Amino acid sequence: MCELLGMSANIPTDICFSFKGLAKRGGDRGPHKDGWGMVFYEGKGCRTFKDPKACSFSPIARMLEDYPIKSKLVIAHIRQANKGKIALENTHPFNRELWGKNWTFAHNGQLNNHKKLPTGRFEPIGQTDSEYAFCYILNKLELRYKNKPHNLPNVFSFVKRCADDLRQLGVFNLLLSDGQYLFVYCSTNLYWITRKSPFGKARLIDEDVEIDFQKHTTPNDVVTVIATNPLTSNEVWQKIAPGESYLFKHGEHIF
Amino acid sequence: MCELLGMSANIPTDICFSFKGLAKRGGDRGPHKDGWGMVFYEGKGCRTFKDPKACSFSPIARMLEDYPIKSKLVIAHIRQANKGKIALENTHPFNRELWGKNWTFAHNGQLNNHKKLPTGRFEPIGQTDSEYAFCYILNKLELRYKNKPHNLPNVFSFVKRCADDLRQLGVFNLLLSDGQYLFVYCSTNLYWITRKSPFGKARLIDEDVEIDFQKHTTPNDVVTVIATNPLTSNEVWQKIAPGESYLFKHGEHIF
Repeated sequence: MCELLGMSANIPTDICFSFKGLAKRGGDRGPHKDGWGMVFYEGKGCRTFKDPKACSFSPIARMLEDYPIKSKLVIAHIRQANKGKIALENTHPFNRELWGKNWTFAHNGQLNNHKKLPTGRFEPIGQTDSEYAFCYILNKLELRYKNKPHNLPNVFSFVKRCADDLRQLGVFNLLLSDGQYLFVYCSTNLYWITRKSPFGKARLIDEDVEIDFQKHTTPNDVVTVIATNPLTSNEVWQKIAPGESYLFKHGEHIF
Repeated sequence: MCELLGMSANIPTDICFSFKGLAKRGGDRGPHKDGWGMVFYEGKGCRTFKDPKACSFSPIARMLEDYPIKSKLVIAHIRQANKGKIALENTHPFNRELWGKNWTFAHNGQLNNHKKLPTGRFEPIGQTDSEYAFCYILNKLELRYKNKPHNLPNVFSFVKRCADDLRQLGVFNLLLSDGQYLFVYCSTNLYWITRKSPFGKARLIDEDVEIDFQKHTTPNDVVTVIATNPLTSNEVWQKIAPGESYLFKHGEHIF
């Protein structure tokens, strides 16, 4: 299995603190040693950092822990390979263009019979069940909307129905974004927390690090973090029920 | 205008030396301060590093100068913006999937009337003439080949004809790859050099750095480097004539 990390915020925010906790699980404290990746959106563009090596030993991960790239939307993933060899093409998150936007996808779980999923013109590059599922969803979206849709919450409601179908094939915890919205679907394990004023202190579970968010925020900031397992020991994380989805925009819960 | 850098090799090779020279032109010795990007292929996967900031002041560029990511195929670009604001979505190289492969594109030059180019289902995300041209070529390829082609040199001969057409719209120096082949098209300015045994020493033009390739290679290595302007002062770089294209695979010149 793998671990997911997502962030949606109303102001460009760095994710160094949360990533420090996640990175510890990538081959040091956890079994997720088979690569990691992180996507940062900035406007319509995004940057993707990937490494098929263990996160906790990656020079790129070290740089990202220390270089505060600020973004309103981040998706990260650390991998414990099941389907698909350890290789860059099998390293999440995956990116594709649809409707002139960068879409990003990361998956935790395992799907059976994924090669039977029709993917249309979105051909998988690697061998993972995850990338197949991503291509399947994009193909479903393109078939469903002949013209570029403008009501994105409706689009993500449709994605929820696709995810319900995919969950029948196995375990399907999902983070998906078009750059503005962060869609979260829980099959087994996902937690979320929204931090807003008054901000307090938070302490990582996986490393002896504490942060005082009050010193790094303004009273208007809203930052939601989603993770496979809670990253901090002294905050209350909400567990998402199996089969439930959440949609966030600018840190706020839309549905 | 911008500067391009490409590498094709028969063995995973690091590009730190050449990138050190190029990076100096990105906002320090040169006017190309409006972002930079670099794509490294590894098997079917690739990693893309991008920064809309000047290369010579980028922590990501610093890491790449020192962290020798080895690859058989690299495309890099430093930008001096003309069309499209300074932003991540306008930062080269651009990546898209076609036929289950990662395609990478970087452009030096400027095209007129680029918004009239038909791009089909490949919708530009940013505002550059370059990304339009990339989407135009991919669309032409998809229309030309109803089934996935297996003779890639033929495909790149077709790309050459598309590039001839695009050159009518302005200046169009191009690097394009499907991960195996590196296609180079010259509109005004491009140079290449193939390094093979017996290897010698090379000295950067833009920085006081010398490398003895003999210490870093085996007798079987073949490494071709393509750049907008020669990067070293003591080697003979071949100038590509306007309207000429070159195709490289594993460092060797195919046509």
